[in-house]
Order: sequence, then C-alpha cells, then structure tokens
Amino acid sequence: MTEKGRTAEEMARDQREISIAEFFEKNRHLLGFDNPSKALLTVVKEAVDNALDACDEAGILPEIKVEIKDLGENKYKVVVEDNGPGIVKEQIPKIFAKLLYGSKFHRLRQSRGQQGIGISAAVLYAQLTTGKPAIIYSKPKKKGKTHVFYLKIDTIKNEPEIIKEDVIDDIKNTGTRIELIIEGSYAQRYHSPDEYLKQTAIVNPWAHIVYKSPMGEKFDFPRAVIKLAKRPKEIKPHPHGIELGVLIRMLKSTKARNLSAFLQNEFSRIGSSSAEEICRLAGVDTNRKPQTLTHEEQEKLIKAMQRVKLMRPPTDCLSPIGEKLLKEGLSKEINAEFITTVTREPAVYRGIPFQIEAGIAYGGELKKKNEEGGEETSQVKVMRFANKIPLLYEPSGCAITKAVSSIKWRRYGLDQSANSLPRGPAVIAVHIASAWVPYTSESKEAIANYPEIIKEIKLAVQDCARKMLMYIRKQTRVKRETERLNIFESYIPLIIENAKELAGIKTKIDIKPILNKVVKKELIKSGKEEKGD
Amino acid sequence: MTEKGRTAEEMARDQREISIAEFFEKNRHLLGFDNPSKALLTVVKEAVDNALDACDEAGILPEIKVEIKDLGENKYKVVVEDNGPGIVKEQIPKIFAKLLYGSKFHRLRQSRGQQGIGISAAVLYAQLTTGKPAIIYSKPKKKGKTHVFYLKIDTIKNEPEIIKEDVIDDIKNTGTRIELIIEGSYAQRYHSPDEYLKQTAIVNPWAHIVYKSPMGEKFDFPRAVIKLAKRPKEIKPHPHGIELGVLIRMLKSTKARNLSAFLQNEFSRIGSSSAEEICRLAGVDTNRKPQTLTHEEQEKLIKAMQRVKLMRPPTDCLSPIGEKLLKEGLSKEINAEFITTVTREPAVYRGIPFQIEAGIAYGGELKKKNEEGGEETSQVKVMRFANKIPLLYEPSGCAITKAVSSIKWRRYGLDQSANSLPRGPAVIAVHIASAWVPYTSESKEAIANYPEIIKEIKLAVQDCARKMLMYIRKQTRVKRETERLNIFESYIPLIIENAKELAGIKTKIDIKPILNKVVKKELIKSGKEEKGD
Repeated sequence: MTEKGRTAEEMARDQREISIAEFFEKNRHLLGFDNPSKALLTVVKEAVDNALDACDEAGILPEIKVEIKDLGENKYKVVVEDNGPGIVKEQIPKIFAKLLYGSKFHRLRQSRGQQGIGISAAVLYAQLTTGKPAIIYSKPKKKGKTHVFYLKIDTIKNEPEIIKEDVIDDIKNTGTRIELIIEGSYAQRYHSPDEYLKQTAIVNPWAHIVYKSPMGEKFDFPRAVIKLAKRPKEIKPHPHGIELGVLIRMLKSTKARNLSAFLQNEFSRIGSSSAEEICRLAGVDTNRKPQTLTHEEQEKLIKAMQRVKLMRPPTDCLSPIGEKLLKEGLSKEINAEFITTVTREPAVYRGIPFQIEAGIAYGGELKKKNEEGGEETSQVKVMRFANKIPLLYEPSGCAITKAVSSIKWRRYGLDQSANSLPRGPAVIAVHIASAWVPYTSESKEAIANYPEIIKEIKLAVQDCARKMLMYIRKQTRVKRETERLNIFESYIPLIIENAKELAGIKTKIDIKPILNKVVKKELIKSGKEEKGD
Repeated sequence: MTEKGRTAEEMARDQREISIAEFFEKNRHLLGFDNPSKALLTVVKEAVDNALDACDEAGILPEIKVEIKDLGENKYKVVVEDNGPGIVKEQIPKIFAKLLYGSKFHRLRQSRGQQGIGISAAVLYAQLTTGKPAIIYSKPKKKGKTHVFYLKIDTIKNEPEIIKEDVIDDIKNTGTRIELIIEGSYAQRYHSPDEYLKQTAIVNPWAHIVYKSPMGEKFDFPRAVIKLAKRPKEIKPHPHGIELGVLIRMLKSTKARNLSAFLQNEFSRIGSSSAEEICRLAGVDTNRKPQTLTHEEQEKLIKAMQRVKLMRPPTDCLSPIGEKLLKEGLSKEINAEFITTVTREPAVYRGIPFQIEAGIAYGGELKKKNEEGGEETSQVKVMRFANKIPLLYEPSGCAITKAVSSIKWRRYGLDQSANSLPRGPAVIAVHIASAWVPYTSESKEAIANYPEIIKEIKLAVQDCARKMLMYIRKQTRVKRETERLNIFESYIPLIIENAKELAGIKTKIDIKPILNKVVKKELIKSGKEEKGD
C-alpha cells in the first residue's frame, strides 16, 4: 500500500468473496463459541438437538448417549450417540462439514434445528481449536454397514474435506455417533452440559438420556412416558405474514400457470373463493400468468392478500409438549409441593404459528432457610425452552424474561422489585413451540421481543400464577386452622377439667384419643379441598 | 410427508444448500432490520459508513450528502452521496448486491466496515420491503463517465441481478451515490438518523455532512478541521493471537519454502532470530517445508509461538481520533462548561491491536433544573463509538456500558446506584479503534466483553473522571469564595461606618469602588487557578 490515497482501480484488486465458513471462523462468538465453557455446552447442545430431531422425524423413541472426557490441557472429547434413522452415506460430509446446509431451513415446521449451521459450526470449532477432524459413524439401514467419516471443513470454500473414509460392521440397529475433540472448560454450574441435559429431559420426557460427565459421574435421565409427541406437519406460508420481496420471488419461480392456482398452491388457507377475492381486490385477473405481473400489480396483490379475511395458519406444524407431559417432566426433576402447567391455544406472529406453554413449581425443595431460620427468598429460577431446547444464555435479552418480569407478582403472592423477576420458592418454566423460532442470534440463546409472543407468554404464566396463588392461600388457611386446632388442643383439657369439677365427676377421662381424631379430621378436610383444585 | 416415521433416504431428499442471502432474508433482525425505525437508521448508517471509509482510503476530505424523503405509506427514499474515489464498473454489482463480498474482511486494518455484508443487506432489505432495486451512480475517474446500475439480489444464488445499466455524463469529480426505497419509520429521537449523523460528526471532525431530514429540515455539520486522520496501515497477524486451525490452514497454503520464511513473512514481529527460537522450542528444523509438518509438530509450533517473547503488534494499523480532535468534536456539538478527553496507548486482545479514547463533557447545557428549581440529576448519556461509527442500539450488552457502570462514580463527584450508570450533568464518550472490532452481532451494535477491552475503557474513563472531579471541586471552591466575598461586601460598610465614628471622621467616603476592586481581584485569582488546570 502506498502512503498516498488509493484509487478505485487499486481498491478493486482487494475485493473478493468471503465464504460463510471464514466469516464464522472469525466471528465464532456469534455461534455460541465465545469462551471455553460456553463452547463445550454449545457442542453438546448442537449434537443432542440434532439427535433428538432425527429420532422425532423417524418416529423412534430416542436413546441418547452423551460422554465428555477430560483429555487435560483444556481439551475435551465429546461423544454423542443416538438410535435415530442414521444418515445416507452421500449426505454425511455436507451435513457435518458445510455451513448453511440442511433440510430444516426451507420448510415451515417445528424442529430444534432450523438454520443448517449448528453441527458444522461445532466441527469448525473443533478444527479451529485442536486441529482435529470430526469422526462420524452412521448406520442408515438395520442390516447395512456403518459408514465412518473423518471430516474437516475447507473454510475458504465452505466445503467438506474428507480426511478418511471407512465402512465397518456394527451389531446395533440404525443410528449416528459423532466424536469431537475441542478446547473447552467444564464446571458443574448453571451453564454446564449437566444442566442442559437435565432441562432437556424435562421437556423431552419420552427421551432416555445417559450422560457420563468429565468427572466420571454417570447420570441417567429415564423416560417418563413411552410415547413420542405427535409429529408436526409441514405447512405453506400464510398470506398475512408474507413480504413483498418474497412474494415477487415466489411469483417468478412458481410452476402454477395462473394466479388463482399460484395463490391456492403456494399459501395456506387460500381456497378458490379467497383466491378470487384477492385477485378482485388487487384488480388483476385470476387467469394471469404469475410471471407477467407488473411491479404495481405485485404491490396491489400483496395489499389485497393482507386485507382479505382468512383463517389463521394451520397449527399441525406445531408439536407442543402438552400440559400433562410438561407437568410430568417438571415433577421428575424438581421435588416441589405444587406444580401446575398450561398449554395455550396456538397464536400467530408475522404469519408464523407459535404456541406457548408454561409451568410453575412451588415450594418443597425450593424453600430454603436463611441463617436466622426464616425463609430465604431469592429470585425465582426461570427455565426457558424453545422447540424443546433449553436456553441457558442471554436471559436478559429474551422475550421470556421480559414477559415474566412484566407481571405484577405481588398480586400472585410473590415478592418483586419493579420490573424484575419475582422472589420466592418457585421455578417458572416457559416453552415456545414455533414453525420458526425468532432467535436474536445464530447461537439461538434468546427469543426476539415480538409483542404477540410476549402477550401469550404473559397470559400463560399468569394462568399458572393464579393457580399457585390459590395453593398459597390454601396453605396459609391450613396453617391458620392447624394453629387454631393447636390452641384448642391445649385449652380443651382445662375446660374439661373445669367442667368435670363443676359436674362433680371424679373419674379420670383420657381425652387425647378423641381430640386427635377431631384434629385429624379437620386437617384432612383442609387437605382435600386443596387437592381438589 | 407420510404420517409414519421417515427413513434416512427420505430425509436425504430434503437436504440442500442455503444461500447466505436467503439466510439473512429470513433473519434480517440479525443485520439491524428488526423494525421500521431501526431499519431506516441502519440503511443510512451502512451507506454513510461506506462513504466515509472510501474517502479515508482515497485520502479525500469527505463531503457527504444525506437525504431522506418521506414517500408516504411508511415508505422512504434514502439517498447518500459522497465525493470519494468511486468504484470501478465491474465491481459495482457485487459490492452492492452480493452478501459477504468486500475488501475489508481479509485484512487487519482499522475501517468502519469489516464484514462485506452491510450495504448489500440494505439493498436486500429494500428489495424485500418495497420490491424496488437499488440505484447506484459511480464515477471512478475525474474525466470519465458515471456508471449507473439498477440492482437487485438473486437471493437463491446470492448473486447480483442487474435490472438496468447505463452510462451518463456528470460534471462533478469522482464519487458514489446510492438511492434506496425502503419501508421505514422516522421520529426525531435518540435512535434517529439525525442523532446518528450528529454523533458521526463528533468523531469525524474532518467530514462535512449535509443532511435533509424527512421533515424537510436541513442540517449542516461543518468541518472542525481540514486535515484527514493518518491513514492506517495493513498489518500481518500477531503470533500470540493465532489459533491452531488458522495456523494449519496458513501452513498449507503458504508460498514460503521453509518454516523460517513462513514465520517471518506471514506474521508480524517475527524476525530471523525469533523464527529460529520458535523452531528450536518446537523441535522442528527451520528449513522444513511448511506443508510437511505433522499434526503433532503443528501443535508444538503453535505452543512455541505463544511462548516466545515478541514485541506487541504494530499499531500503525490503527487510526484513533486523537485527544485534541475528539475534544473539538465534542465542543462542536455539546455546549458544556468543561470538556476533557484522553487517548490511551494501544493495547492487544487475542493478538489484535486496539486503542481506547474517552471524553467527558460536564455542566453547561447539560445542567437541567427540576420543577422545584433544584438541579435535576438524570443518568449521564453515554456515547459509544467503534472505528468512528456511533453505536445507538444494544447499550446493555456492550462492553462500554459495562465498563462505565463498573466505575465507583461517587469517588468522582457523581451520584450512582450500585453497578448502574452514574447520574449527573455529564456526557461520557468512549471510542474503540481496532483492526477488528469484536461486535456481538452482525448488526454491529455492541462490543463483546473482552476483559482487556473493559480494562482499557475503565482506565480511560477514570482518567477523564479525575479531571472532571478536579473541575467540580474548584467550582465548589469558587462558589464558596464568592459567597465569602459577598458576606464581606455586606459587612465592610458597617465596619467602616463604625470605624469612622470611633475616629471622629465626618466626611462621606465612597468605599464601593475600592471594595469592588478587591472582590474582583479575589475572583480573578480563583478563576485563574481553575483555568490553569
């Protein structure tokens, strides 16, 4: 470079394409690889999410094995193995060693992965920090062989680089196994793989997960149910959520011969009569060839699509956990006195269906004593989930935290400073299921603040909070009744003694058994009322 | 899709590549296009940042014209024109209509842009929301023609789509002009293009910016200096910041014939003797061909590179604003009583040089009265800058906010709640200049929390805070002195009258002029001390 200014010609020489792999190699914090401990969690997360997605899609009850080995010098070997459908040989290199490659991006249907980045990013991170290739074993047919690939990513081209390829015999059924050697850091705390797997077990109660930690401990998260959730269906985009640029692209590339067919085939909730109404409102003929519309007509068409009344998008693209299973999941992992859950009806943001579920666990092991023996009230723990994935980082930027903090918790019996999370012996769990989760970053750590989503979360959590309040009130009443009975118990003998004296009775009466009977009866009554909730 | 589970073969059919343009079309919030008002700001920002970068690189004093026209129905036309070097015809389509294309990604040198995404993202956003192509005018030669391009992005391929191409005559010198029609929203408030341009003028005092707002108002931000900042130089990566994966890639693709030449040519701060020392520590011969190293040797090499003592990276890749210019920039836009600025020595994070500058403006127009006539103390305004770009969004996630909040401000005369921004009549400005700014997202809104960066910011701001404290103390002293003199002034005549009476003097003495002289002298003395700071 010369000291004097450069000309356009000189500058032109430096212009070149940047591969997405180079981009993320330099910006790996965007993918959740900011620091060694987050990186270890992210690698486990991407591999387990993929394993669960594959089992869901194949209709197989998941058996997942996770092992993290401490290799010393801040190096860890991560192994994740599933009993899923496996991957056909030709696809293995691209799925694991090419960023922006996958099956989930171009469809509208709930799944854990959606970007085609995650697992290749983990392979990229391994290669970047330890220089080691990923090792993939995959067996797509019960009676077939297992394919073995040693893979790296050619970052300049964003293409897989096959280091070694092999075929072996394996007695098990189908499945996939990935081994990665990465730089990382492990500690048993909130952001650890341990916590991630525990929370994964809560929202995937049909999964059996076995985990061996770097300390050599074995954890077994058993199934709570032996039935998979209903498999979500793929849907077409809803006309109310479409943008002009996308519509123009769709008009250009459609195979439909006329506008009416285009509208009916490529969108959900448009039948022949609403197609006609849209065309009438837009002032274009239903028989027009989609490719021939002028820009002005395209603009009129999208406006008409927004104006016409249509059914909300179909919601069979969603697969919520369900109130019952969410409750079982929470009970399995949290020893609380009281647990309540709710699944709301599906709603829509920007034309995309989503559904909120929430749960509150209260009391029991969540009650802590402080040094003076009183109840300690720290902030409640909020567990955030999106498409059955636990979200452990970036709580402050997340719509879930925002919605929970915006509730007036004093009304529901919990202490709270203005606009903060409430304090009390409770865990609040919130799950958003959506055909496309609007994450705030590629690392999928927080939900963007769409007003429709925040509103639904608030309604779901408030519903649980009301039930919790009723429980707290009953508990207070039971406590009060018990206190009253205790007083009764201490005074009754005196009254009886006096009555005896007045009546001139001298024989000794043991009133204890009678009293106990009465007291127990009262307590049982209170208890029943509460359980009947 | 069938209702029963799918096999690996069925799944394989859905696997495909995702273009980066499709990815960002669906995830446009990642690029700063979350909502209409942020989108308008982002479009202006990307275009102005590019214009300033081009002028810097060509050594041209920037003349930037910005115009935003309200077209009704939430549509805006944004026009940004510069007097920069222009762009050669062949490069125009790719620079404006291909994501991940540019000259700044692959080099280590301070510039506003670094990813090759920004301006194409603005073009993508225009196309998505209004379906309109971007119009680019560019004249790379004084005596040549102006090239005109109407451009869209083929999002499936991430390649430019040339809608129209033309050549016109234009009397002006060189330069580039971009016109975009977008969906947006405009309001005169903190996040507006107005504020962005005002802050841009502060940290680019050599730029002349003329701006016509959607309300038709004209703003002129004149130059404070007529000299461009020293142009930064490109540097090689520093051995201490390199990662194994990158080293392996460099070893593979280098043209150097032996290890010694490789180390000296491809890294900064390695001479022949440190190259020898590195090879000796790694146990590999200096004459080895770089491509022939085993994985074990590669690992030993990177460890040796970290262990050997080297000079810190060269810092001429940086172009700070400078204490003097930052002060002039702040004075130009803020009418404060007291302004102090500091530029720290360059430092290093992960092998990448960076440099922190800070300024505090105190009092004057920043002092506000509350309803009772007392001083109102709201939180200070923090202006955040990275490579001379104002950062207006995501303050809470930014290292600058974190560093400023972590300072104990009561020590420096400002009120503060624990771990919050201080309260008082002050503006705090912080600038990070770096060969690679570690942004937390592609939308470049906040700086990642590297400890080295936070430490430097704290030191810079504390330095300014100390000077502010001295000023506040002197102000308090001057105020006290003035009060004392006022008391003096009211009592002296009485004393003189009494003295006259005692001495039997009857003539009338006018002591006012004498008194005024004394008082003024005292005040001037206090004032001088203060100015001498």
